[in-house]
Amino acid sequence: MPITYETVCSALVTILVLILYVAMGARVGRMRGKHNVAAPATAGHPEFERAFRVHMNTLEQLIIFLPLLWLATFFYRGIAWLPAVLGLLFLFGRLIFMQRYMADPKTRGPGILLGVVSYVGLLILTIIGIVQDWTVFSA
Amino acid sequence: MPITYETVCSALVTILVLILYVAMGARVGRMRGKHNVAAPATAGHPEFERAFRVHMNTLEQLIIFLPLLWLATFFYRGIAWLPAVLGLLFLFGRLIFMQRYMADPKTRGPGILLGVVSYVGLLILTIIGIVQDWTVFSA
Amino acid sequence: MPITYETVCSALVTILVLILYVAMGARVGRMRGKHNVAAPATAGHPEFERAFRVHMNTLEQLIIFLPLLWLATFFYRGIAWLPAVLGLLFLFGRLIFMQRYMADPKTRGPGILLGVVSYVGLLILTIIGIVQDWTVFSA
Repeated sequence: MPITYETVCSALVTILVLILYVAMGARVGRMRGKHNVAAPATAGHPEFERAFRVHMNTLEQLIIFLPLLWLATFFYRGIAWLPAVLGLLFLFGRLIFMQRYMADPKTRGPGILLGVVSYVGLLILTIIGIVQDWTVFSA
Repeated sequence: MPITYETVCSALVTILVLILYVAMGARVGRMRGKHNVAAPATAGHPEFERAFRVHMNTLEQLIIFLPLLWLATFFYRGIAWLPAVLGLLFLFGRLIFMQRYMADPKTRGPGILLGVVSYVGLLILTIIGIVQDWTVFSA
Repeated sequence: MPITYETVCSALVTILVLILYVAMGARVGRMRGKHNVAAPATAGHPEFERAFRVHMNTLEQLIIFLPLLWLATFFYRGIAWLPAVLGLLFLFGRLIFMQRYMADPKTRGPGILLGVVSYVGLLILTIIGIVQDWTVFSA
């Protein structure tokens, strides 16, 4: 893999997102202690359960986000920093999601929405990139 | 990363699989509304729980499938479309898994089996690819 | 992607880790049968719940481990086998985690700690690699 400006930007976004995800997991551990929810239980106190679902829901999203971020990074040839900026949008959405979900799960919508905008953007960049390359193949 | 026929095929399969996975997640959301299972609860109605497990089980499988798909895509040098075809087998298996699990979880076996066939195939292609390259290194 | 010694080593570690993860998932299936925990239930017997959490916790860790392993593999230009050795540390940590968690969840700490050491090491290698490349860009 050639080291490019695009791959460095996407690597830094990947690291930031993973650090947030690790922080979410660490909170689950602290909540086990605070509310006496011993493993393997995954329920028992509302605050623990919210922290648990924030972490798990972010895992559910990462398996979509990380592949699309890197597909866009490799296939899209246009504005070099655009995949990484869409990645920062995902990161920002997860921060909002975490804060709102911990306060009141009913207000978690906007954080999810920012993630969807990020995915759709990365998907569009990937498809643009594939079409550009396809045109090159056919030429 | 050089853009090749192999990488474009595997990218398209990745996108299709992720779209199915997003649809599974959207169904979990709808089932929360339909059966009044408010977050952070992950149980409360059988139909919600089936939709939740279909989504979660597919997440459990994606962390195996996506790395093996891309390892096979990069290492295997033979029939260019073979990794992607094994990826379509996984996609088909997940569609059957979803439909059968929602109808009756006891009938979920064949969908899982197709996924296992896909993994084993991708693993064999990866190992063939590594052995081919190893031979080249040693030469 | 050029096939290098580094990528072959990291591919082999990825395959070993995924095989352990599949074995953990197979145990969840066996425990469903042994303790009559029919899908979609994810609770009902302590031994089933421990096996379920061992598998799920490893999934939670894989979404951190696999991206960092491959970021380090691609960006770090130093001791070629170092990312793979840190990957073997993660594998060893998960083996200990599994054995201890099944015996008594309270003793699961050391297995988690080895994983954290592996992550931090891979993160440091990735950042070293990015800084090295950044210096090349700027030169």
